[in-house]
Amino acid sequence: MKFELQHTDPQTKARVGEITTDHGKIQTPIFMPVGTAGTVKAVQQRELKEDINADIILGNTYHLYLRPGLDTLEKAGGLHKFNGWDRPILTDSGGYQVFSLSGNRKINEEGVIFKSHIDGSKHVFTPENIMDIQRTIGADIIMAFDECTPYPADHRYAKESMERTHRWLKRCTEQFDSTEGKYGYSQTLFPIVQGSTYKDLRKQSAETIASFEREGNAIGGLSVGEPAEDMYEMTDLVTDILPKDKPRYLMGVGTPANILEGIACGVDMFDCVMPTRQARHGQLFTTQGIINIKNKRWEQDLSPIDAELGGYVSTFYSKAYLRHLIRSQELLGAQIASVHNLTFYLWLVRQAREHILAGDFREWKNIMVKKLMQRL
Amino acid sequence: MKFELQHTDPQTKARVGEITTDHGKIQTPIFMPVGTAGTVKAVQQRELKEDINADIILGNTYHLYLRPGLDTLEKAGGLHKFNGWDRPILTDSGGYQVFSLSGNRKINEEGVIFKSHIDGSKHVFTPENIMDIQRTIGADIIMAFDECTPYPADHRYAKESMERTHRWLKRCTEQFDSTEGKYGYSQTLFPIVQGSTYKDLRKQSAETIASFEREGNAIGGLSVGEPAEDMYEMTDLVTDILPKDKPRYLMGVGTPANILEGIACGVDMFDCVMPTRQARHGQLFTTQGIINIKNKRWEQDLSPIDAELGGYVSTFYSKAYLRHLIRSQELLGAQIASVHNLTFYLWLVRQAREHILAGDFREWKNIMVKKLMQRL
Repeated sequence: MKFELQHTDPQTKARVGEITTDHGKIQTPIFMPVGTAGTVKAVQQRELKEDINADIILGNTYHLYLRPGLDTLEKAGGLHKFNGWDRPILTDSGGYQVFSLSGNRKINEEGVIFKSHIDGSKHVFTPENIMDIQRTIGADIIMAFDECTPYPADHRYAKESMERTHRWLKRCTEQFDSTEGKYGYSQTLFPIVQGSTYKDLRKQSAETIASFEREGNAIGGLSVGEPAEDMYEMTDLVTDILPKDKPRYLMGVGTPANILEGIACGVDMFDCVMPTRQARHGQLFTTQGIINIKNKRWEQDLSPIDAELGGYVSTFYSKAYLRHLIRSQELLGAQIASVHNLTFYLWLVRQAREHILAGDFREWKNIMVKKLMQRL
Repeated sequence: MKFELQHTDPQTKARVGEITTDHGKIQTPIFMPVGTAGTVKAVQQRELKEDINADIILGNTYHLYLRPGLDTLEKAGGLHKFNGWDRPILTDSGGYQVFSLSGNRKINEEGVIFKSHIDGSKHVFTPENIMDIQRTIGADIIMAFDECTPYPADHRYAKESMERTHRWLKRCTEQFDSTEGKYGYSQTLFPIVQGSTYKDLRKQSAETIASFEREGNAIGGLSVGEPAEDMYEMTDLVTDILPKDKPRYLMGVGTPANILEGIACGVDMFDCVMPTRQARHGQLFTTQGIINIKNKRWEQDLSPIDAELGGYVSTFYSKAYLRHLIRSQELLGAQIASVHNLTFYLWLVRQAREHILAGDFREWKNIMVKKLMQRL
């Protein structure tokens, strides 16, 4: 993997860059649609490429490991071949999912023993086997096995959790560096900064993570319930420490406003289930603000979903028709809203990129944060 | 509406023709995808046009009347404008749905009083208001308000039901002929032959329906549980009576084999929820036979869903990937399987058309009926 930092905004810490992987280039800042089980929910691969124009998507190690399973993925030649997505893929480490299985998992220094949510079968994730599993899934960017420290956490727990994440990182890198990709293309490993909302821990974690000198770095454990101001403060603190010549990925973030503020803090990569999950519930992110399409207000509004955004679904279908579909629980409603929201998210980061290059990012961002979060 | 009968098979009663409506031409024999609530479930309008290449789709009067409702549809300028489908649309009369609401409907000579399945509100359908409702929905082809006689029915009930359908037809035609389309294009009314599985009744009904001299005729009350042989026998009997220079529509039919046999009996138009409903349950109709994609057999089958069929979803996605999606209850599974099955159904009727024109329809049909219904 190669990262070229192309421009830095003089007024904020926003950056423009380009990541090169064996599956193609990613122009940053970028938003990565989440494809949990090897599919971005309700979106055809063709739509993801041609309509949304995603540079990279995510897969979830926990889900893919359980189903379709490593045998099938390896037989296919990796996830790209299995699902037909030939651009870059990033996989999370599964840590977030298994830690969330409260009652169905046991943590010790070695790793996590957990029960499958599908059939109750027992499995173990360790830093080492998670590297092997992600090697087999075949993502271009693979994530270290960490604990996403829950919020709130007291300082003592946050510190212990962070320190285990750091110890596990060492094991991850040793395993990763002593193995090779299975399908003839390169993979790279991103470590993850933790430390909850404690400045001293975030600083310590960022320094530790930076010292591993990997090709990119991630910031985890944010957007988990803390106030947005805390998220921005921690991100800002961490990006002051992480190396400038490597991409920074703020995990699980977020709303359009969160993403713009994250970019201002010097973040290059984002992912979140929000655009697709909210789409299925009828919440639309548009160039004019947020729409709850179920509202009576849209019942006879025959105007396009978002004429300014452009693209097939956003200009072809009307608000009234989409409202009808979502209220009638028609699958097409989820499809249209998902493609629309993702098109909007990709538009947003590309607009940010242009404004950073044009030198007016800060003014634009301050206007957009207000505009995009208003409820229409 | 205009119907041109272009060719009749010398060995069977199969026909090739072309229907011209103000929303475009329909080449027959044709299969019409069902778009109950103004959407063919899980299929984008663009896919319906460009991938499946449907000439005409159905809408359900009962569903559309309740939701989005006539106000919204009229404000939009009819269903074509509301859902963006600019090719022909046929609406059923709602009779089938309201008669199925057993316990929540009362039938008398005037019409049917029923309760909405959505909110329990009371409504009345009569032959007259059903014409008005379909005028407002704006379908190109609208159906008479009939009773789809349930199966089995004794001769006495079947006769009474048929006679009421005939009396209601007179009221339908009077109302239809004394009103006009609301949106500047022509609409036409198809009456429906009933008579259960009784030859005398079917003959009588076909003669009565033919005597109304409408632009097309439908055969209802079949594919409701009777043996396939009875369906073919009744269809064959009815098409001997219905005028040759008008299209015949066999309602709610059916499997690929049913459709081929129906074509052999001289039917021109078909509709059925089967391809989309079965798709959502993982049953695929392919050029090689029927696939239950959930079967373990397909777990690691990385071959395309149906290479011979062609088209985006059927060649881009593998059986193993589709199996994974359907088992994981991912929306994309329903989407891919629905587009695939409808592509297959449209391929099937177009193949039939070519073989009728080529003069080898009967041989081809006899081979295909066996091939297409085998379980792989």
